[in-house]
Amino acid sequence: MKDIATLWWDDELGGIRFIDQTLLPEKYAIVRCTTIDRLVTAIKRLEVRGAPALGVAGGYGVALAAANCPESSYPAFVKKVTRDALLVHESRPTAVNLSWGVDRVLARVQAASGVSEAKDAALAEAKAIAAEDTRCCHAIGGFGADLLPDECTVLTHCNAGALACSTWGTALGVIRSALAAGKKVNVIACETRPLLQGARLTAWELARDGIDVTVITDSMAAHIMRTGKIDAVIVGADRITKDAVFNKIGTYMHAVCANYHGIPFYVAAPISTFDATRLEKDVIIEERGREEIALVGNRTLLPDGVPVRNFAFDATPMDLVRAIITEKGVVVPPFDINELVARSTTY
Amino acid sequence: MKDIATLWWDDELGGIRFIDQTLLPEKYAIVRCTTIDRLVTAIKRLEVRGAPALGVAGGYGVALAAANCPESSYPAFVKKVTRDALLVHESRPTAVNLSWGVDRVLARVQAASGVSEAKDAALAEAKAIAAEDTRCCHAIGGFGADLLPDECTVLTHCNAGALACSTWGTALGVIRSALAAGKKVNVIACETRPLLQGARLTAWELARDGIDVTVITDSMAAHIMRTGKIDAVIVGADRITKDAVFNKIGTYMHAVCANYHGIPFYVAAPISTFDATRLEKDVIIEERGREEIALVGNRTLLPDGVPVRNFAFDATPMDLVRAIITEKGVVVPPFDINELVARSTTY
Repeated sequence: MKDIATLWWDDELGGIRFIDQTLLPEKYAIVRCTTIDRLVTAIKRLEVRGAPALGVAGGYGVALAAANCPESSYPAFVKKVTRDALLVHESRPTAVNLSWGVDRVLARVQAASGVSEAKDAALAEAKAIAAEDTRCCHAIGGFGADLLPDECTVLTHCNAGALACSTWGTALGVIRSALAAGKKVNVIACETRPLLQGARLTAWELARDGIDVTVITDSMAAHIMRTGKIDAVIVGADRITKDAVFNKIGTYMHAVCANYHGIPFYVAAPISTFDATRLEKDVIIEERGREEIALVGNRTLLPDGVPVRNFAFDATPMDLVRAIITEKGVVVPPFDINELVARSTTY
Repeated sequence: MKDIATLWWDDELGGIRFIDQTLLPEKYAIVRCTTIDRLVTAIKRLEVRGAPALGVAGGYGVALAAANCPESSYPAFVKKVTRDALLVHESRPTAVNLSWGVDRVLARVQAASGVSEAKDAALAEAKAIAAEDTRCCHAIGGFGADLLPDECTVLTHCNAGALACSTWGTALGVIRSALAAGKKVNVIACETRPLLQGARLTAWELARDGIDVTVITDSMAAHIMRTGKIDAVIVGADRITKDAVFNKIGTYMHAVCANYHGIPFYVAAPISTFDATRLEKDVIIEERGREEIALVGNRTLLPDGVPVRNFAFDATPMDLVRAIITEKGVVVPPFDINELVARSTTY
């Protein structure tokens, strides 16, 4: 079976194509995206989501801004592309990879000697980010697979899979690599309220690949941990500071409960997720709209006027993290982020 | 404002009337129930739910079976009513109150001297259970209110409110009594997947009474605990054995996380919830259907063929419980259930 492709540059289209993840599992549809406005909408609506995929989307976003920019004067061109890049950068606040991808491609635009070179360099850099992401996921998968027993049940939260990356996945990449290495792995996917990325996306992509997956509500994880049936928890990350892992809301709860039950809690994420310059207190946790909790399909789940809190992410302090699986190897907290970022790439 | 009435005997109807809780908050509808089949359906579908309310429903169920029984010979009458009582008893396995209510009224039927006396005694006993439940809730409320600070935020899970009882509530009864005593209490209600009793029912009944309530997904509780904004967790119970509290799935997760953050975890439940004869290992945890997780309204949340686990309850061991609030006072584990059950009623 062909690996899942989540988003890619279509040369013929002169734009980005991606799976609209809001429609899964009911509908598999590929969007043709040729404007920055459409891309920003897609990121805000979570049609494209997942930290590594947002890095790729940020890179392609700047390449798209460059490709579409009508300015022939290089200073005006840079000004316009930079403005568009900022729109992409600001479309979601928590995942560091988005701004990382934007900044990396924008730097190539700003360093070019003219418009034509800038357009070419932007697209080449964005494609390089996507190719690196794929290599990273396989490297993470390999390092992580070594941590798992030959037969095991792994609990995961949200979707840190192929759909969160360009392909393969980070947390689910570890599972795919372990299976490829001949290990027997069952997956328990937490549905991940409010937007149900675990039920809709993780279940979809694992079932598509014939991987054994069972879905539970988020609130069942601790109960199943208590029965002794979970050997490891593996999640992705949206941003890793020196002191905490930011990931989908619910991650912290799993970390506390895994710790209580002596179950290893692993984070699988590329180096692009690390934010060496910030601490937890410096990071904004995105709060999203009431309707994500109050409405599902045609059903109103909340009385009118009752308020919600809708944190999209939480922070898990490092003392609850057994290890972080990166493309440069497995690191155990406390660790020096700068040393890790500076490590020579091993994949 | 009039207190919420959840289920009651209608003399004119010669049957039970209850709020169909599956329709809230979108629709407030009262069902007229005159057959055992309809009652069993209502209990299985969770139109009537909540441990104390199931005790009342069990009692009224046997009274209804007696009222409807056409047998004029007393032995045949007892046989038929006992058979109907068993159907009610078996409609849900985990909450002990259901069988407790059934058994208590059935004992009156079986101890009567004839059909007519049995019918009268059954109805009188069932009405007594309902009246006691109301008194119990107020007594629990009073004892629990004393445990809360003058200003506090309380987290609760599922619905242990008026809708789970005949009126007032157990966990929410504590909150109502604290407010009545002049304390300032904000409530955070966990939505409680899969059936969303927190979002649909707790939010509805608290908002109806003008009580400050905010809804979160179950997975946000630990994150909010970490921010220091929760002063206590109060939940109800479906069965309390010597070693564990059985309650809605997710309760255990909150208990582990409350413990980790040093937040008191309280259980509010009437003595009828105690099961002095069993240990955790003797209790069956109900598993419910896939569709409760896979479907909400017109939305399919899971790919075809992907399995789920759907535990309706979990067990929280006593070492995570700060105290149990009963109508006979507040008890701290470890405690002697038999002594508690035998205590003279204090309300």
